[in-house]
Amino acid sequence: MTAYQKMTPAQLAQEVQVLREQYEVYKNKGLKLDLSRGKPDGDQLDLAMPMFGILKDQQDFLDETGFDCRNYGVLEGIPEARRLMGEILELEPDEVIVGGSSSLNLMHDCVGIGFLHGFPGGKGGWRKEETVKFLCPSPGYDRHFAVTEHFGFELIAVPMQSDGPDMDVVEELVKDAAVKGIWCVPKYQNPMGITFSDEVVRRMANLSPAAGDFRIFWDNAYAVHDLEPGKGDKLLNLMAELKKAGKPDMALFFTSTSKISFAGAGIAAVGGSAANIAWLKKHFGLQMISGDKINQLRHARYFKNMDGILSHMEKQAALLRPKFDAVLDALERELAPTGVASWTRPRGGYFIPLDVMDGCAKRTVALCKEAGVVMTGAGATFPYGNDPKDRNIRIAPTFAQTKDVEMAASLLCLCVRLACGEKLLQEAQLTEKTGA
Amino acid sequence: MTAYQKMTPAQLAQEVQVLREQYEVYKNKGLKLDLSRGKPDGDQLDLAMPMFGILKDQQDFLDETGFDCRNYGVLEGIPEARRLMGEILELEPDEVIVGGSSSLNLMHDCVGIGFLHGFPGGKGGWRKEETVKFLCPSPGYDRHFAVTEHFGFELIAVPMQSDGPDMDVVEELVKDAAVKGIWCVPKYQNPMGITFSDEVVRRMANLSPAAGDFRIFWDNAYAVHDLEPGKGDKLLNLMAELKKAGKPDMALFFTSTSKISFAGAGIAAVGGSAANIAWLKKHFGLQMISGDKINQLRHARYFKNMDGILSHMEKQAALLRPKFDAVLDALERELAPTGVASWTRPRGGYFIPLDVMDGCAKRTVALCKEAGVVMTGAGATFPYGNDPKDRNIRIAPTFAQTKDVEMAASLLCLCVRLACGEKLLQEAQLTEKTGA
Repeated sequence: MTAYQKMTPAQLAQEVQVLREQYEVYKNKGLKLDLSRGKPDGDQLDLAMPMFGILKDQQDFLDETGFDCRNYGVLEGIPEARRLMGEILELEPDEVIVGGSSSLNLMHDCVGIGFLHGFPGGKGGWRKEETVKFLCPSPGYDRHFAVTEHFGFELIAVPMQSDGPDMDVVEELVKDAAVKGIWCVPKYQNPMGITFSDEVVRRMANLSPAAGDFRIFWDNAYAVHDLEPGKGDKLLNLMAELKKAGKPDMALFFTSTSKISFAGAGIAAVGGSAANIAWLKKHFGLQMISGDKINQLRHARYFKNMDGILSHMEKQAALLRPKFDAVLDALERELAPTGVASWTRPRGGYFIPLDVMDGCAKRTVALCKEAGVVMTGAGATFPYGNDPKDRNIRIAPTFAQTKDVEMAASLLCLCVRLACGEKLLQEAQLTEKTGA
Repeated sequence: MTAYQKMTPAQLAQEVQVLREQYEVYKNKGLKLDLSRGKPDGDQLDLAMPMFGILKDQQDFLDETGFDCRNYGVLEGIPEARRLMGEILELEPDEVIVGGSSSLNLMHDCVGIGFLHGFPGGKGGWRKEETVKFLCPSPGYDRHFAVTEHFGFELIAVPMQSDGPDMDVVEELVKDAAVKGIWCVPKYQNPMGITFSDEVVRRMANLSPAAGDFRIFWDNAYAVHDLEPGKGDKLLNLMAELKKAGKPDMALFFTSTSKISFAGAGIAAVGGSAANIAWLKKHFGLQMISGDKINQLRHARYFKNMDGILSHMEKQAALLRPKFDAVLDALERELAPTGVASWTRPRGGYFIPLDVMDGCAKRTVALCKEAGVVMTGAGATFPYGNDPKDRNIRIAPTFAQTKDVEMAASLLCLCVRLACGEKLLQEAQLTEKTGA
């Protein structure tokens, strides 16, 4: 296969013709496949099933202090659950509040608290200010951006690099007092799959924002989600760096077991400094009595500690590796020779990021959809759903069965080639016509 | 015993002297009792324990449509849970969203949605308005009032009568476009124990508020909580009345199983018209993927339907009746003859309301506390914690064991008599001195 950029217009026309025929064959297969969302599949979920046998008798429902988890109380979560989630977040148990089942909901609630009342160090609720801005390293997680959009904030895209957000840009932007926060998925970032470098974490911890209650929203959703156990990325501990910098209040930490135990039925946690935790407890106390402590207890008893979590995640990784390999093999085989796309091999997380030729992502995703393969909407990984270069595609291979991932990845590659081939052909024909 | 108001100053002095001595005896007992919050006790919680054995094998986790409840999705809740909660709320399944474990949290989120974006029929987010007011029938539920206070709204107290809020006052107040809602616990109201009359419900349904997105927050927390099964109060169906009045959007309905299955670990629901449900789904969709559907399924499988709920609640009622009787017997025996307090015998719910002589509630609660019995703070049942007549005390007899309730109720009665006796004595002495 010749790289597309080196093909003559005639060769391109021929290639596009062949691809169209292959595409028609796929279309006639009546596929119904989905590589769109980072969901676990049934086999993964089966791994945590013994959890449901753990709480049986009345005595089983007492937490380690003897508190009956079937009753109201303990806003901050039971001690054993705070300890477990603290291990995942690398925070002390008293730096953690365990909430309901959704970390997204906790993030939403924290943004809501900032909006209504601000955070320690600030000047009160952000609602009183003309403009509130939030930094959105992009490509990033669409649901993060949507939360801050929902509150009417202005979303500022910050370029993602191979080692994290462009910190030169971030350092400059936080000089604006209207900038109240930044969304980060620091490990196996959604969708880039990269982990923030030590330097990025250190620069993050040493930011000097104009807003006294600027907060880093540190969503460590994939903290323990290595694809090759023991060979995973190491993320520097932001809280330790913040403490060194004398700025322990500058970040809020989030995680959940949605992609460890059960999606949407796990336990979620928010972490932070003593001042932040006190602030959150004060405000959470007005909206709820506590999270579901029975589910907290079930999780704490089942996983016990970090060793329990890690040995569980090894089993998940064994199920996930073939799916990631199926996609990466297809990309290598079908796209590498064409030179119209680039990607990275993540060492963990839920996504493989694919960059195609500028202006070809939307067309690729549309072609996939027409042939029965749903991809995350092109642009979704950018604020306002707008990828300025129209080139990023998020591949989520975890939910489908491996043979379906293989099929979907082959079709995806075909669609990338077709979209890019068409575009190059069009450009070549235009050049011929105008004689340029 | 002579009614206190008929005693001579000398008799009063003698009575107060005796009461003080009795009080000292109680104080020396070192009691540690709590009649402060509406919490179930362990025996009640034991009743729902078989629920935990219900979901075992992989197949058990599929909802009736075949959806795997262990995975992301189904924002509005699974069909069987919507149907079950719809039965409790007397709404159609598609008029119900089943959320997490806390109805308070759902109410908070609904107020938040009103604040940010308003509701259908309105002019957008309430945050844009100078003043937002909420009507608070009082005595009422302190946590309701706290939610709207948290958003910075002005709380307007509306007198509670024996058949519900004073609707003359409500009808007048809603002419103010700044009034965006009213908090209601329509059945076995917290803390008055009364149920809104048909007339009150009809007048509620026919309100003509100036604000196009005024909402009745109808917290039917005690919908199925009869103390004498079969002899409970009947609440008129507000939604049916709203539909008759052509105003189906004017109310949001709330309930949870916190006081049916497990406190803080049950399932909660919000209900409303098609327009409201669509609005809520749109906004909830930005803060969460869904509630915990495994817990929804567990509840739906265990209770099945309204018959299942009602037979479960009969068992709870059998446990609760002796506790209510213990309090009511003490009030009758110790306070009726003194004429310094009044109360009603609720036919369900979690509370017994006690009105003491004006200006004596705070003192009574302080005396109880000093002797080791925690009562709900006096005034807590009014906006801003301010009972203008300082007379209402909320008695919550469900959490303590019956013998402890007896002891606590006796002490409470003693404290009421002491506080009121002291006050009357003081007034009598003052009258003597001034020769009035």
